[in-house]
Amino acid sequence: MVDIAMIEAANARLGGRARRTPLLSSPFLDEIAGRRLFVKAECLQHSGSFKFRGGWSAVSGLDPVVRNKGVIAFSSGNHAQGVALAARMHGVAAVIVMPSDAPKLKIDNTRAFGAEVVLYHREREDRDEIGSRLSKERGLTLVRPFDEPLVIAGQGTTGLEIAVQAAEEDIGSAEVLVPCGGGGLTSGIALALEARSPSLKVRPCEPKGFDDTTRSLASGRIERNATLLGSICDAIITPQPGNITFPIMQRLCGPGIAVTDKEAMDAVALAFTRLKIVIEPGGAVALAAALFHGSQIAGNAVIVVASGGNVDGHVFMQALDGYAGRLVTN
Amino acid sequence: MVDIAMIEAANARLGGRARRTPLLSSPFLDEIAGRRLFVKAECLQHSGSFKFRGGWSAVSGLDPVVRNKGVIAFSSGNHAQGVALAARMHGVAAVIVMPSDAPKLKIDNTRAFGAEVVLYHREREDRDEIGSRLSKERGLTLVRPFDEPLVIAGQGTTGLEIAVQAAEEDIGSAEVLVPCGGGGLTSGIALALEARSPSLKVRPCEPKGFDDTTRSLASGRIERNATLLGSICDAIITPQPGNITFPIMQRLCGPGIAVTDKEAMDAVALAFTRLKIVIEPGGAVALAAALFHGSQIAGNAVIVVASGGNVDGHVFMQALDGYAGRLVTN
Repeated sequence: MVDIAMIEAANARLGGRARRTPLLSSPFLDEIAGRRLFVKAECLQHSGSFKFRGGWSAVSGLDPVVRNKGVIAFSSGNHAQGVALAARMHGVAAVIVMPSDAPKLKIDNTRAFGAEVVLYHREREDRDEIGSRLSKERGLTLVRPFDEPLVIAGQGTTGLEIAVQAAEEDIGSAEVLVPCGGGGLTSGIALALEARSPSLKVRPCEPKGFDDTTRSLASGRIERNATLLGSICDAIITPQPGNITFPIMQRLCGPGIAVTDKEAMDAVALAFTRLKIVIEPGGAVALAAALFHGSQIAGNAVIVVASGGNVDGHVFMQALDGYAGRLVTN
Repeated sequence: MVDIAMIEAANARLGGRARRTPLLSSPFLDEIAGRRLFVKAECLQHSGSFKFRGGWSAVSGLDPVVRNKGVIAFSSGNHAQGVALAARMHGVAAVIVMPSDAPKLKIDNTRAFGAEVVLYHREREDRDEIGSRLSKERGLTLVRPFDEPLVIAGQGTTGLEIAVQAAEEDIGSAEVLVPCGGGGLTSGIALALEARSPSLKVRPCEPKGFDDTTRSLASGRIERNATLLGSICDAIITPQPGNITFPIMQRLCGPGIAVTDKEAMDAVALAFTRLKIVIEPGGAVALAAALFHGSQIAGNAVIVVASGGNVDGHVFMQALDGYAGRLVTN
């Protein structure tokens, strides 16, 4: 349903429009991780996260007649911005359905990219139902956030770049840790690496208590999260892995790794100090796994994806404050 | 004394070791600037600033017998880290003379890179005198922060990359705004662009009240700063432009632009929100000039160098806080 040819096609459609994000490193982080650590900085992607890749892939892949009627997406914020920006660059309308507790920055940016924003309650309302209804009413094409082949193919272009950059850094074999919500990025990267660099093995990373993919991979069937509220990692909180993404992850990924909110926030602070990049907490779970759960990882090198940087200032300051505080008291 | 051949030679010595930093952009920043705005993110360079380029260039350019006796540098922090890291990578000792009021992060990092740090008072003591004395006593080679051909050549490699990246972005002619302390980066980039992309014109940017280069370019002779204390832009506070760098800037650069500390801090906050990069205040003066002094700039596009990101957490939080506060009250 999704394969390397689709990822290559998405890459061709994206050509010159997605940023080839850098693979960063710091000797200070290597020391904490106990191995060479490389960070694929997708927070530097257009719209502030990898979601621009999937958004562009999906919008550019539509029949022009269909596309011109407009698109709709539901998202906690990063997919929203990715689709909104891709739609604007194509000159078509975008309606974005967002949870009312999404970070203000993400809601504001989505509106600033010219999209119409419809808010819903994360636990009381079903975003799929709202999306489908609006889609029918207005003739909009629904761009699903992860369980959509064109989107998975777009996210997979991150994996094509990782394969090239790992070779440039002389990384032979390594685990590639990926922040995982519904699994679009994780499965897309896994497919790209299967074809282009099979010695790089993907591991999904999630927040503790919202580790639906980790548990699903362990049990062999799709497991749901008990709740969707209460994590600082808003970017990657989804009810369960997708029907398309899960079988891909099951076939290609190693076991999931779960990190605490505190560990994610500490990773945010360390990325600030050591890499000079801004990561949001949800985008920092893979870095947190590499830094604080090294015993679960194999190999002399590890690659982590920093998937997004759309974080409100007060949350970022909390991360810096918390980390500085701990440095003083320890 | 320094020319494009020296810059190319430095680039060859650096090959594969300096990071080719990305040229970033955001539609939100374009809107504020009133033109296309591109940010050369040298804060993502090894050691957190462009200074790694000059440090490596100088250390790698020494005769091995001389180099093995060790090097010494005096610096408010970024040159310190660049030289310390380059020395460590060459396996030689480094002594770094730093002002006692340098950001704690810079002092700590310099030590962490294995250098011996000697502190001095920025106004009461002469760092040149201290550097020369220690250099003689221990047989160390002094690596000057900017008035040194090998260092200027190293910084100039930033300009080689800007020339290529500007072509990739279809930027025909534009001004290139560069944070300017002693003028090593500014003159190096100006020399590289003169040879590789003469339609890109360099403009030095400085903090108001510490605009020695701007005043020197205006008067035609080297002018000194009245004081060296009281700016948040520690990275680029120097007594006066260099004897080597000034004639280069005089020949190749447009007039300087001075920005307030508040504008530099707002640029730090906007780079956080819109580009997801961490810039230190001194490294943000060129971005501040592009955002808040557009009337002094010509053309439909502008390129700014974000020269470093080594900022203490509390200063960064001050920038975010100040900007958020102004958003609320305006």
